[in-house]
Amino acid sequence: MELWYTEKQTEDFGITAKIKETLVTEKTDFQDLAMIDTAEWGRMLVLDGMVMTTVRDEFVYHEMVAHPALVTHPNPKNVLVVGGGDGGVIREVLKHPKVEKAVLVEIDGKVIEYSKKYLPEIAGELDNPRVEVIVNDGYMHIHDHKNTYDVIMVDSTEPVGPAVELFTKGFYQGIYDALKEDGIFVAQTDNPWFKADLIQTVNRDVREIFPIVRVYGANIPTYPSGLWTFTMGSKKYDPLQVEEASIPEFETKYYTPRLHKAAFALPKFVEDLVK
Amino acid sequence: MELWYTEKQTEDFGITAKIKETLVTEKTDFQDLAMIDTAEWGRMLVLDGMVMTTVRDEFVYHEMVAHPALVTHPNPKNVLVVGGGDGGVIREVLKHPKVEKAVLVEIDGKVIEYSKKYLPEIAGELDNPRVEVIVNDGYMHIHDHKNTYDVIMVDSTEPVGPAVELFTKGFYQGIYDALKEDGIFVAQTDNPWFKADLIQTVNRDVREIFPIVRVYGANIPTYPSGLWTFTMGSKKYDPLQVEEASIPEFETKYYTPRLHKAAFALPKFVEDLVK
Repeated sequence: MELWYTEKQTEDFGITAKIKETLVTEKTDFQDLAMIDTAEWGRMLVLDGMVMTTVRDEFVYHEMVAHPALVTHPNPKNVLVVGGGDGGVIREVLKHPKVEKAVLVEIDGKVIEYSKKYLPEIAGELDNPRVEVIVNDGYMHIHDHKNTYDVIMVDSTEPVGPAVELFTKGFYQGIYDALKEDGIFVAQTDNPWFKADLIQTVNRDVREIFPIVRVYGANIPTYPSGLWTFTMGSKKYDPLQVEEASIPEFETKYYTPRLHKAAFALPKFVEDLVK
Repeated sequence: MELWYTEKQTEDFGITAKIKETLVTEKTDFQDLAMIDTAEWGRMLVLDGMVMTTVRDEFVYHEMVAHPALVTHPNPKNVLVVGGGDGGVIREVLKHPKVEKAVLVEIDGKVIEYSKKYLPEIAGELDNPRVEVIVNDGYMHIHDHKNTYDVIMVDSTEPVGPAVELFTKGFYQGIYDALKEDGIFVAQTDNPWFKADLIQTVNRDVREIFPIVRVYGANIPTYPSGLWTFTMGSKKYDPLQVEEASIPEFETKYYTPRLHKAAFALPKFVEDLVK
């Protein structure tokens, strides 16, 4: 008997992955959570029927959330990750020795618990002494911490369920206020093939708040369309002004100094969404 | 009743698309051919169970086969497309006014016939007077035309069925000989997530023949992993030496002058395959 996980990424299109073992299916206080061991991608975390991360391709998303902003900021001492309870972004953040403290604010403690248990390759650094893990609403945390962070990363689910408020203009204003005077924020902003409207709306909102706004992309095979976008808002530093030769060495599987600027060169139809 | 087209892109992973109407299913002399109208991607050409092109996302593949090489060559008068019976690459080639003649050599006349009938947005330029369409084996054509072409593009299926010989070193040597002394060739070379070995083998073979070898990528949602690679072999001109400002304007939906060089900035794990 073969079991397959099929995700409708739109009403009319999806992906399907052979299941080796279903490890967890649980309704948490916030969302439906599943941990599946798949034959192609290894263990896979699914929230509300959407792949969040898999052991095989997680490095793309986590590296591309963390490194472009941390390389752009000259002195990122205090970093906040909103969401990201699997710990993958935190792991990448810690590769930057200038980071003294990385705070993770995840609303759903079950995501942290099951990631630690079943995804140790991803969540292993959550116990690092430079990390503070807080189980709380990121929106509230942002509003309680003015002028605090050098870099804020929003590693949220899609704008359904608990993440809806993380795609509002009020949230972006809160992020602006929680950043120091030269702070940078970055958020995952879904894909341009099926969610063009979302990318446009976020871009318009962030432009009204931050003086420098840049969008970049990365290939993530298990995410809808395989092309994921990230929106960066910055008060002072422009990621496009980073000199390739000035980027320090750290171990990666996706990000490279050469890719740093190249990731901001968008396909024409995506460029048209955000110009 | 809902009908879905499901393609196993590997043994353990695939995509699935809702079918509005199945227009053609036929065993040609060379392969299984299907033309399906899908709800998400519009009409879709499927050969031997693999998506070749869809009306909605075809522009990515066709632009990215054609433009990087044609922008790199200063005077691409004579262009050969091997395969590509749907006509999409030819349509893009004709956007370059320096191209005097574009020859299409497709082994399977049925691909041309059904593309003209069901995919007029893609195949419409096959009747252009600058185009010569030949139904023949590309391998034979290459070997019968020494020192003939400025640019050769290999728009093949995966290396199964009729396309197997189009991934051999003997074929690349034939291409080298069919090119003029400053010629350039480009081939689609599958994806790095599931076909890393293929990319490595092609790269090694092409390096033994061409002095300049470059690999670039593009996001194609309906192709396995969403990240497609293209390998370029050049006798004289380096695509990385093209000045962005020198690239002429032509209408595209994916390719841009800025993306020209950026497409060659590969993810680390892909760079490692071809260095």
